[in-house]
Amino acid sequence: MLLARPRPAPAWRTTRWFNTDEPLSLERLRGRVVVLYAFQMLCPGCVAHGLPQAKRLAELFAREPVSVVGLHTVFEHHEAMRPEALAAFLHEYRIGFPVGVDEPGEGGDPVPRTMRAYGMQGTPTSVLIDPAGNLRAQTFGATDDLILGAQIGMLLQEARTGADGAAAEPSAAACDEEGCGLPA
Amino acid sequence: MLLARPRPAPAWRTTRWFNTDEPLSLERLRGRVVVLYAFQMLCPGCVAHGLPQAKRLAELFAREPVSVVGLHTVFEHHEAMRPEALAAFLHEYRIGFPVGVDEPGEGGDPVPRTMRAYGMQGTPTSVLIDPAGNLRAQTFGATDDLILGAQIGMLLQEARTGADGAAAEPSAAACDEEGCGLPA
Amino acid sequence: MLLARPRPAPAWRTTRWFNTDEPLSLERLRGRVVVLYAFQMLCPGCVAHGLPQAKRLAELFAREPVSVVGLHTVFEHHEAMRPEALAAFLHEYRIGFPVGVDEPGEGGDPVPRTMRAYGMQGTPTSVLIDPAGNLRAQTFGATDDLILGAQIGMLLQEARTGADGAAAEPSAAACDEEGCGLPA
Amino acid sequence: MLLARPRPAPAWRTTRWFNTDEPLSLERLRGRVVVLYAFQMLCPGCVAHGLPQAKRLAELFAREPVSVVGLHTVFEHHEAMRPEALAAFLHEYRIGFPVGVDEPGEGGDPVPRTMRAYGMQGTPTSVLIDPAGNLRAQTFGATDDLILGAQIGMLLQEARTGADGAAAEPSAAACDEEGCGLPA
Repeated sequence: MLLARPRPAPAWRTTRWFNTDEPLSLERLRGRVVVLYAFQMLCPGCVAHGLPQAKRLAELFAREPVSVVGLHTVFEHHEAMRPEALAAFLHEYRIGFPVGVDEPGEGGDPVPRTMRAYGMQGTPTSVLIDPAGNLRAQTFGATDDLILGAQIGMLLQEARTGADGAAAEPSAAACDEEGCGLPA
Repeated sequence: MLLARPRPAPAWRTTRWFNTDEPLSLERLRGRVVVLYAFQMLCPGCVAHGLPQAKRLAELFAREPVSVVGLHTVFEHHEAMRPEALAAFLHEYRIGFPVGVDEPGEGGDPVPRTMRAYGMQGTPTSVLIDPAGNLRAQTFGATDDLILGAQIGMLLQEARTGADGAAAEPSAAACDEEGCGLPA
Repeated sequence: MLLARPRPAPAWRTTRWFNTDEPLSLERLRGRVVVLYAFQMLCPGCVAHGLPQAKRLAELFAREPVSVVGLHTVFEHHEAMRPEALAAFLHEYRIGFPVGVDEPGEGGDPVPRTMRAYGMQGTPTSVLIDPAGNLRAQTFGATDDLILGAQIGMLLQEARTGADGAAAEPSAAACDEEGCGLPA
Repeated sequence: MLLARPRPAPAWRTTRWFNTDEPLSLERLRGRVVVLYAFQMLCPGCVAHGLPQAKRLAELFAREPVSVVGLHTVFEHHEAMRPEALAAFLHEYRIGFPVGVDEPGEGGDPVPRTMRAYGMQGTPTSVLIDPAGNLRAQTFGATDDLILGAQIGMLLQEARTGADGAAAEPSAAACDEEGCGLPA
């Protein structure tokens, strides 16, 4: 269910943020499981499936080290989906989690930069990033709740105990001069 | 299920139309049952309930003398819901029935003119107009499919056979020099 | 939406009734629009679509001259769907409208008699009967709420004003010694 | 999301099994994550929520070490839900995962024995058992897919790497005379 070969998640390139005092970045979210939802406010699949799932996720996992983050990746109808329109959309749809605006593509590229860097095929796309900043899953279109839940559960558990051989990093705190303790 | 006292439906005041070659009006739709859906493109209830119902209605009643018409009645976030944005919205949501843009309110009134004339309380609002141009039902919020269907069925049947006392017009053809025939 | 050629609805053959003090029959329901739901308690489509629609119908049209009636037409797994099991089912599913048990088929016919008389293809099947006892529509499988609503609305309106040529019965009260009045 | 204090899951007491050649038991499922669904065939919440979730789970996790098992825990309307009726139900609802019939309660207890041993409050109840046979979660009523998915994901990951302090059992194989190896 998770990518066989985790790789560092590309940095986010954003021009503006909503619902957060400070811009978010992968570095600031280190230590948490991050669920990134790329969407467009006029994308029917995003409105019907992606964003409602993101809202429930933010609510249900509020007490877990899980961060739900939206990314407005406009690649069409740019004039209709400017940040001012997005602000109205977020207000009307009662979206309370942080949402960044993806930086416009370079040299006339209609695809914004973060979307391009992740190689997304469209919206909605959900991305799972582990506490170490590695990209662990990326799905274009609707993701079944059971599967998404299982992926998050795996990352949460992994964060507690360390992952298996390939991906696990022995916690620095696990062993010190005094000896080796059980992971916290 | 229908208003006890039908009254002539107020004229539509619009600045622009989509999905139709010529502007629509009550006069042009005389003889048909009209279901008017007032909506805003950034209204969650419109996107989740009103517009999907309107789409199904247009599809299911395509062979009946029923016209489904949208009316974009923007009373908030005006900058985010300009006609250019509406065009993108209609395209993305695959809305194929005619949609008019309600004329801005006068003297700084945020409520557009047709919405004001009908005394609508918000969006979505669905309005039923009979073939003679009378307003027969108006509902703010979601309408149950069974109820809406029944209202339309009543108007369709009424159009065939004449309504009851108050609204009925004896068909000219029902009685002639030869005597009185059963309604066709 | 209604049958081009209405015909008298076949009589109901039943062995038992639930949720009603006296057995129901077409005669007893004369003057009302009747929506008959043929179902089996272990039929997934009946439980998921037919019966919930019937429940909503009974609720929404409680003040109209509409009667919702269930008919348990068991044509398979007879041992698992005996009347005692049906009683438990009706209790658990909170079904409050009258339900008759279709009379077992004759001569080893697994299809019960009323189901056979109506030529039903399976369950769920919904049947619309007008106030004069004529069969006006019969649908196997799920019926769209909008269509069903429209059919019921047509019959309700027809009952008020008389139907078109084929089905209309001139009301006895429409003409008296004084002459002929418009239908009430 | 998982019980703070795992405890050995009580043994299953069953009289009959469907959809499996041999009776299932906790012992036979050791090494797998087990999702046990207690249900009654005439329980609306089971039919609407519990069993459809169980079916999707069985399908989506078919390639994972996850076993979905049904348990027919009849505590009311016993006559209407005998094993013969259950067989018809499982056939009609296309339920393909193994289903056991809970053993009738002793001494006239209407609650069957496994249901009693787990202290279930009603149906549907879902129970999560880890690969070591410990009860890790038990929920009466509908469980959100995201939460259930996360719980299963945690157990799957835990099975790969060992759990955290409180719940972890050092694998017998982890340490031997040669020293201690990383968990497989």
